[in-house]
Amino acid sequence: MKKSLGAKTIVYPTPVWIVGTYDADDKANGMTAAWAGVCRSDPPCVAVSIRKARHTYAAIVQRKAFTISIPSESYATQADYFGMASGKTADKFAVAGLTAVRSELVDAPYVGEFPLVLECGLLHTFELGVHTQFVGRIEDVKADQEVLDQRGRPDVEKIKPISFAPETSTYHAVGRPLGQAYSIGRELKTG
Amino acid sequence: MKKSLGAKTIVYPTPVWIVGTYDADDKANGMTAAWAGVCRSDPPCVAVSIRKARHTYAAIVQRKAFTISIPSESYATQADYFGMASGKTADKFAVAGLTAVRSELVDAPYVGEFPLVLECGLLHTFELGVHTQFVGRIEDVKADQEVLDQRGRPDVEKIKPISFAPETSTYHAVGRPLGQAYSIGRELKTG
Repeated sequence: MKKSLGAKTIVYPTPVWIVGTYDADDKANGMTAAWAGVCRSDPPCVAVSIRKARHTYAAIVQRKAFTISIPSESYATQADYFGMASGKTADKFAVAGLTAVRSELVDAPYVGEFPLVLECGLLHTFELGVHTQFVGRIEDVKADQEVLDQRGRPDVEKIKPISFAPETSTYHAVGRPLGQAYSIGRELKTG
Repeated sequence: MKKSLGAKTIVYPTPVWIVGTYDADDKANGMTAAWAGVCRSDPPCVAVSIRKARHTYAAIVQRKAFTISIPSESYATQADYFGMASGKTADKFAVAGLTAVRSELVDAPYVGEFPLVLECGLLHTFELGVHTQFVGRIEDVKADQEVLDQRGRPDVEKIKPISFAPETSTYHAVGRPLGQAYSIGRELKTG
């Protein structure tokens, strides 16, 4: 018998991504987003939901671009700070001691120190009331050489991304591998 | 210097959720989704992207409802199977040995054995080409008593959800806690 917890955003895992933008003064800004995910394979797209009051909201509307930078677990403090401060009053990159790298593909900066970044052009804007969902077309994914495996693929155990647990509001590391997708379920399919 | 990997859906973490629906024959079906995430806080909503060819696509369009069931890591094999087989030809719940529980709130079933489930009514349908993004309003979240902490909140370390790593197509457990959100970043904000 399951217990009802009410209508809440309780679901796992949710990501911890830094959304990078330039504001009207050309100042680089970053905002932590957990209400986000992939939303299309071809062309590849991600969706991030942002409140209209956020500094990042106006920046995406104006520049029609954003980046997603994935913090490693060693940057959990900086990732949390990017979700607490506002780019309206703070230079978050400077405070966090991180480097805003200007994308050559889209009009937005990414976090140089983070191991994996996505450069996105704004494709769709879906109004959802308090939140606006921005769908960005992924123009490129860039990764540090050190997080690639021998076949040149990003290795999630080297990237060490962070996940966010709603309700308890805790950050968590990625844990041990549980198996290969499109493979471990085969025993049931053919069984 | 980062290496370009091209325009791909490489981003971490992505979730492993089972989308539960009833088809035109009233058969319960489940489909594994990783292109998904929270998209709104109030009212709480999740978004899942599904290809039009999927059996689940027609079911959501017809029933205007779906559930999200979160598998524990001990159900990784079943979760993978739900992403490989099609409800057009298979009774996936029967093959996987899982129980389809009829929701009392929405016209869709959830996985009884999984520790946390969301019951969603279809709120928006966004066409994204090959994928359609369904936005579901979360009507209730239900959890097994055993995964709640002393304050009655779901404990992600007891739920043991799975994350999916694109490109290497591997499943991963949730790892150790890295800190409290809206807290660990404070040292930078006041520093």
